[in-house]
Amino acid sequence: MSTSGVTIWLTGLSGAGKSTVATGLAARLRADGHPVEVLDGDVIRTNLSKGLGFSKADRDTNIRRIGFVSQLLTRHGVMVIVAAISPYQAVRDEVRAQIGRFVEVWVATPLAECERRDPKGLYARARSGEITGLTGVDDPYEAPSAPELTLDTTAEDPDHSARRVYEILARLGYIPLSSEEPS
Amino acid sequence: MSTSGVTIWLTGLSGAGKSTVATGLAARLRADGHPVEVLDGDVIRTNLSKGLGFSKADRDTNIRRIGFVSQLLTRHGVMVIVAAISPYQAVRDEVRAQIGRFVEVWVATPLAECERRDPKGLYARARSGEITGLTGVDDPYEAPSAPELTLDTTAEDPDHSARRVYEILARLGYIPLSSEEPS
Repeated sequence: MSTSGVTIWLTGLSGAGKSTVATGLAARLRADGHPVEVLDGDVIRTNLSKGLGFSKADRDTNIRRIGFVSQLLTRHGVMVIVAAISPYQAVRDEVRAQIGRFVEVWVATPLAECERRDPKGLYARARSGEITGLTGVDDPYEAPSAPELTLDTTAEDPDHSARRVYEILARLGYIPLSSEEPS
Repeated sequence: MSTSGVTIWLTGLSGAGKSTVATGLAARLRADGHPVEVLDGDVIRTNLSKGLGFSKADRDTNIRRIGFVSQLLTRHGVMVIVAAISPYQAVRDEVRAQIGRFVEVWVATPLAECERRDPKGLYARARSGEITGLTGVDDPYEAPSAPELTLDTTAEDPDHSARRVYEILARLGYIPLSSEEPS
C-alpha cells in the first residue's frame, strides 16, 4: 500500500500509557499494510541521546533529535509513532512546524493514576527523594494547548485508545476512510 | 518506483570528495525515481551529535547514530547515502552488520590531494597547530579492508565517480540493471 507519511506524537507523563497506545496503533496500521516505525523515548535515549540528562535544555535537544529522525521517515512515506514525555510546548510546536504532517496526541492520564501504575518505579524513587527532575513531580509538564486528540487511559483500555487515534488519522485524511473498521 | 533500501556508506578523509560524490549519486538515483536521503557528516553533527567531539569514543558514537538512522530509513525502502569520515573499521563493520543491506565505498583520495583542496581550511589549521585531532594528520584513518568499491577522485571527475557507484549498485542488485545507462 502506498502511504503518505505522518508523525503521530504521543506526549504525556511517564506511565500515562504512551508506549502501550503506540504499540496497539502500530499493530493496527501494519495490519492495513502501512509502513510504520515506533520511536520510543527510552530507545531513542539509548541510540541517539546517550549522555543527555533531564534539564530543560537536554530534554529539548532529545526532542529535536526525535523530530529530525521523524521528519526523515515521514517524508519517505512512513507513519512514525513517537512515544516521548516531551513536556515542553515550544519544542513540540517546533517539531510540528518542521515535520508538517503532524498529529499531536495528548495522553492525559492524570498523575495520580500514572503514579499508581508506576511501571518503572520512578514515582516511588522520586517521592523517596532518590531521584529528582521527574516530570509531573518536581519537573514541569506543559499540557498541549491544541492537540488533535486527548486520551485518558484511566477510563478506556489501550485497544480503545489506539482505535481512537486510528480514527483521527482517517478523519484527518492520513489513512483511507474506507479501511476504518466499524466501531 | 518501488525500491528496496540500501545504505551506501562513503568513507574517507576530509576533502576526499565524499559529499560531492554523494550529491551526484543522489541526483542520478532520484532521476530514476528512487527515494534517496543523503546523511552528511556535518549535517548529522548539527542535528544528532551536537556536543560530541573528535575522540575515538565520540567519533564512534557519532557513527553509531548515523547507522541507527540509516537502518530505520533503509528498512523502509530508502536509498541512504552517508558521507562521513568514519575513520574506524570496527564501527563501520558494526553498522554494516546492523543494517545488512550495506555498500561501503572508500573515497581513497590521497592525503596530499585532500590537503591541496582543503575546502574547509582544516588542514591549514592543523598544520599551523591551531587544531588537533584531524584525521590523516594527527588522528588515525583505518582504510577499509574490503570495501565494495574504491574511488580515487584525483584521477576522475565527480560525475564519473558517482556513475561508478551507481554501476556497483546495479551489479549488486540494489537497482535494476535495466535502468543503468550505457557508460
